[in-house]
Amino acid sequence: MSMVPHGGDLAAAEARWGGPAEGWLDLSTGINPMPYPIPAIDPAAWHRLPQHDRLRELLVTARSCYGAPVDAPIVAAPGTQILIQLLPRLRPGARVAILGPTYGEHAACWAAEGAAVATVDSLEEAAAAEVVVLVNPNNPDGRIVDSERLLALADDLAARGGLLVVDEAFAEVTPRASLAPEAGRPGLLILRSFGKFFGLAGIRLGFALGAAAEIDRLARLLGPWAVPGPAIEIGITALSDRGWQDETRARLSAAAGRLADLLTARGFADRGGTDLFRLVDHPEAARLWDRLGRAGILVRPFPDRPTLLRFGLPGGEDGFARLAAVLG
Amino acid sequence: MSMVPHGGDLAAAEARWGGPAEGWLDLSTGINPMPYPIPAIDPAAWHRLPQHDRLRELLVTARSCYGAPVDAPIVAAPGTQILIQLLPRLRPGARVAILGPTYGEHAACWAAEGAAVATVDSLEEAAAAEVVVLVNPNNPDGRIVDSERLLALADDLAARGGLLVVDEAFAEVTPRASLAPEAGRPGLLILRSFGKFFGLAGIRLGFALGAAAEIDRLARLLGPWAVPGPAIEIGITALSDRGWQDETRARLSAAAGRLADLLTARGFADRGGTDLFRLVDHPEAARLWDRLGRAGILVRPFPDRPTLLRFGLPGGEDGFARLAAVLG
Repeated sequence: MSMVPHGGDLAAAEARWGGPAEGWLDLSTGINPMPYPIPAIDPAAWHRLPQHDRLRELLVTARSCYGAPVDAPIVAAPGTQILIQLLPRLRPGARVAILGPTYGEHAACWAAEGAAVATVDSLEEAAAAEVVVLVNPNNPDGRIVDSERLLALADDLAARGGLLVVDEAFAEVTPRASLAPEAGRPGLLILRSFGKFFGLAGIRLGFALGAAAEIDRLARLLGPWAVPGPAIEIGITALSDRGWQDETRARLSAAAGRLADLLTARGFADRGGTDLFRLVDHPEAARLWDRLGRAGILVRPFPDRPTLLRFGLPGGEDGFARLAAVLG
Repeated sequence: MSMVPHGGDLAAAEARWGGPAEGWLDLSTGINPMPYPIPAIDPAAWHRLPQHDRLRELLVTARSCYGAPVDAPIVAAPGTQILIQLLPRLRPGARVAILGPTYGEHAACWAAEGAAVATVDSLEEAAAAEVVVLVNPNNPDGRIVDSERLLALADDLAARGGLLVVDEAFAEVTPRASLAPEAGRPGLLILRSFGKFFGLAGIRLGFALGAAAEIDRLARLLGPWAVPGPAIEIGITALSDRGWQDETRARLSAAAGRLADLLTARGFADRGGTDLFRLVDHPEAARLWDRLGRAGILVRPFPDRPTLLRFGLPGGEDGFARLAAVLG
């Protein structure tokens, strides 16, 4: 299995600290704690093979939600992770530059397929790469690279057969930074995650948008029926619910601001993030991570950067109160 | 997308014949029409990333249900199809013999990855192959190859680095034919489908059992969180419900017998099948397929064997009555 460290593994937390009496407050991921309400699901969606016409409807809805052109090639997958696993097949053995530090699976998956992977601190250092990967806005620091700059890079890569991979896993909270309106442009491949913003990570739903050659290849590698019927139905409903999306953006913005204030008032230095998580720095981060864990609050450490912690959003008053009480 | 013909695509049927007033009676797949009742699903299963401890519980339950050794290497996937897509990565460029005629995706997926694929009529013809693939019991004719013979073949293949792939997609209705008790033996890789017997094809859940080298590789190719949280929970519940499984085997056997009787009484020659579908031969099969389609009953034709039709099970009295009325 994956050797990349991740948040969200409550069994591992329980093995370390035991199970908290009041249950876990899991702040170790960037998943919206106020999930989209699961709509009633037609029993046929569980029973039948996923239907091609419903999948097409999902893809139309996703393009529209993400602001992509109506004819942009797009493919749905059971989670973005499996697309990340497949991306190396698009450029076997490529020289890959990953703008770091970022989500660890990109480097791991390219390396596992024999690519020459370099993690770079700036796009200038990526000039010799055939494939450039960045998460935008970035996880964990929220860094956003300017769209014009990324489009120029995609054009440059396209001219020499390369590819720019932009993982927009958290772009719902910064919609103007998304390159989805440019989807279909040669050299540009965009990943979108359903589970984080909609708070439904268990459903496993993600999308890739790009040029026809890459999207067709990913679709063939995934095969028919890759996305479960219930995920198709929930995706159609949630991605077309603009009212919920707008309200959620406002709610997440307020909660992220409140979280940042709570943390900075307790001596953490804000190091960025998005409206789905905050990255903070504290000289005693390792000790605080353990104190939080003992109190049933799981946050994300970074083994190779031990003064950093990433906090997801508490879901409501109880969560904020618990966090404040433990941090003192 | 896939160019292999499949059953179960109601939109394609509707494009051809229009939508039937009384709704489709879809007999074009081998999916149990009396599905396992969806249990209540903990909202956390939708919200959180799939949890490793729940996945381990699913794998323990699956091994037990399938009669595999408690330490047999096993991996879960979002449907067996995606495992079929990945199998060629286990033996790149291999000479592959597929015991045909059978489920079309095996040959298509190996060929798409550059394997040299031959469809053979008997295992004797597979002697020179590095990989041998069969569906057991076979789709569509229900052919069952003797376990002793398959184990000898697996041993022979293992001795020269090869692999026997046994797709047991329909083995729940012929449990004694399953090689799952031998899972872990070198050279043997077994696929199991959740959706067909449990009537929940939309959920996408399948398993591979085999030797550690192959199973570990498949797990790495799928990456973390490949199986959705709700599928894990439903799988644990259904795979451990032996009472429902035993009753369902009896119900399916009775329904398959009744279907076979209905068809043979109307001039179809039985060509085999399993308790989840019957394969029949009729000189007027093409005309009858169209007559059934116009009446809203979808069955599976075989373009290259035009006198054959495959019928799935009607789900109840209404379905049997509709079928009998149309066939006259």
